Amino acid sequence: MKVIIINSGSSSIKYQLIDMPANEVICSGMIDRIGLEFSNLTFSTNEAKIEEALTIPDHKTGLEKIANLLMDEKIGVIKSTDEIEAVGHRVVHGGSSFSNTVIITEEVKEKIKQLFELAPLHNPANLEGIIVASTIFDKAKQVAVFDTAFHQTIPAIAHKYALPNYLLTENKIRLYGFHGTSHKYVSENAIHFLTQNSIVIESKIITIHLGNGCSMTAIKNGKSVDHTLGFGPMNGLIMGTRSGDVDQSIIFYLVNTLGYSLEAVNTMLQKQSGMLGLTGYSDLRDIEEKAENGNVDCQLALAMNAYRIKKYIGSYTAVLNGLDAIIFTAGIGENSSYMRKLVCTDMNYFGIELDEQKNELRSKEVREINTIDSKTKILVIPTNEEIEIANQVFELLTN
Amino acid sequence: MKVIIINSGSSSIKYQLIDMPANEVICSGMIDRIGLEFSNLTFSTNEAKIEEALTIPDHKTGLEKIANLLMDEKIGVIKSTDEIEAVGHRVVHGGSSFSNTVIITEEVKEKIKQLFELAPLHNPANLEGIIVASTIFDKAKQVAVFDTAFHQTIPAIAHKYALPNYLLTENKIRLYGFHGTSHKYVSENAIHFLTQNSIVIESKIITIHLGNGCSMTAIKNGKSVDHTLGFGPMNGLIMGTRSGDVDQSIIFYLVNTLGYSLEAVNTMLQKQSGMLGLTGYSDLRDIEEKAENGNVDCQLALAMNAYRIKKYIGSYTAVLNGLDAIIFTAGIGENSSYMRKLVCTDMNYFGIELDEQKNELRSKEVREINTIDSKTKILVIPTNEEIEIANQVFELLTN
Repeated sequence: MKVIIINSGSSSIKYQLIDMPANEVICSGMIDRIGLEFSNLTFSTNEAKIEEALTIPDHKTGLEKIANLLMDEKIGVIKSTDEIEAVGHRVVHGGSSFSNTVIITEEVKEKIKQLFELAPLHNPANLEGIIVASTIFDKAKQVAVFDTAFHQTIPAIAHKYALPNYLLTENKIRLYGFHGTSHKYVSENAIHFLTQNSIVIESKIITIHLGNGCSMTAIKNGKSVDHTLGFGPMNGLIMGTRSGDVDQSIIFYLVNTLGYSLEAVNTMLQKQSGMLGLTGYSDLRDIEEKAENGNVDCQLALAMNAYRIKKYIGSYTAVLNGLDAIIFTAGIGENSSYMRKLVCTDMNYFGIELDEQKNELRSKEVREINTIDSKTKILVIPTNEEIEIANQVFELLTN
Repeated sequence: MKVIIINSGSSSIKYQLIDMPANEVICSGMIDRIGLEFSNLTFSTNEAKIEEALTIPDHKTGLEKIANLLMDEKIGVIKSTDEIEAVGHRVVHGGSSFSNTVIITEEVKEKIKQLFELAPLHNPANLEGIIVASTIFDKAKQVAVFDTAFHQTIPAIAHKYALPNYLLTENKIRLYGFHGTSHKYVSENAIHFLTQNSIVIESKIITIHLGNGCSMTAIKNGKSVDHTLGFGPMNGLIMGTRSGDVDQSIIFYLVNTLGYSLEAVNTMLQKQSGMLGLTGYSDLRDIEEKAENGNVDCQLALAMNAYRIKKYIGSYTAVLNGLDAIIFTAGIGENSSYMRKLVCTDMNYFGIELDEQKNELRSKEVREINTIDSKTKILVIPTNEEIEIANQVFELLTN
């Protein structure tokens, strides 16, 4: 079964054509800067790789262009769009409505629309992708996979805020969580790796997703039970430009005493804070290099970043009342041995003992980087949200 | 040496006359509703107890009234204000200027004034108390003890927020912490109790202050190294009417999408949230009673409250990379066996094992309520901020 995965953003489309259940990527690529003067389009198969600058006024034109390339006589990989049996759409916010992957109906589209307010930057673009794909891949089943779905198992004790009750019951203000597809994928891989196919009833793991956005999940017996991102994708860990946790009283002080506009504060917390605000740089590789060369701001920022991750490891160990493994994933989690080492230093109370040599090895495989004696396993697991979406689509359609 | 401790609030004065170094309370009481039509005044000694309703237009009149009662022919305890050698003033915010108790000079007053912006509800009233006391107890040394001072040892890794650097360097926005006098008092008592006077180099403890305000401190070798309250006294644990930690994106959503004013949101987070927002009640005794009678909102609110305390125990255990003891103090911490039990349940990973019978015993003494086998001690220690202030004043003046 050929499944195309579409991640439709406000000005971009990312796609992967995957053959299931083999998990074989036939073709992948993206279009960015949709609606601007020049867009970039990429298209890669095993045989060909194209990069093209062209004008793509809207998502429909973009997806048509992709479909035409897929069917291209020379470099194409299918003869007709009818060969594609399913389209898997990444949808950021499923609110409380969706705890599972679903086939998209008119009712589903209506619900995604109702959630625009909760994810104004993402859900409208996700829905646009769904509408356009339905016309171009009109024989395929359209399936929605929600970033928030994996976290719908988080109980009220953790998803409710200590605010007036009506904000939850009427306004649906609660912890939703994000990066769910990634946390689900790596946690399932971790449990598989840890148990080596034997049947396991209990597992207590913490997944640490460190990429552009950063988040951690406490996972008990395979289910998300707590998570660092909340109602929006701003709090918890320190990110590239986002502050993560801050004392909310600072917001009122900035506006009421220092005269900032609320909009300026929002922009600051999302785009001028985090590693950028602390160091002047947002790319972790730059920051690590400067830290190694003695830049004090960079050293402190990295230490603060790791400190917060350590605190959440402690916090979630309390939630789980135990800890079998911590898992690093996503760009920084998979590639920064520096950050992993900072996080795992002085954590032996939690049974965390890093093997520094194993930590330095690079690989695209699942790997264990703890010492032999470490009570708690430390794993590095490359995330793959597209494969996870394809797996969920395949499972839904064949079961 | 007779020392009078003065806690001057915006419309109240609390006082205690203490004989040092015996820690003997000679007289204590308060005046509230200063500036309103009727104030209440209380005055208690070993021999007499007075409650009086009268008009107190300002702090000066109030403190004069107290001084006159102290010297009263029938119920007084001193002949002249000159017998009082020192006045210890509680000052809420010492900013980064004060990490210790100080004798009040013009320069100190000026600095307390400069901190009005950081503590607009407290520092002006504290300074008013200092000015008035200087005229009434004009022979006495005036000493300031700051709530934030104990937390000045918190390192940058924990006191800095992941915001643009200039907010710290220019605007002094950082974690200051509160309830420092209480955390210091109970942590010193805890270390004394745990070590039984033997010299101890290392100790890792967590103090849990649960009163009107609630906060926790990670204390390493007697020094505060992290704390749940931050720049203001709003975040961290769930309090009577304050939300504690919330995802900051909710503030922007309430204003930008739901149309709240920023002032209404501030009021909500401080006065309509926490246990009140979750249950409709703010007194924990009411909430516990209703929970026991099956009220689901009250049960969940108590569970959420304990859940957050547990998460911070885990978090601070990571900060300390170990845990010798947790200490419960202040109104709720000292009196609610219900809350202590919720916190200590399913925490055996942290060596926390509650003795349920000891937990139910009531006492005004320092007491251990863990099982004999519990690796981590669980202590209940009554806090006494006035005695702590008197101790600090005495130490400053005699050393």
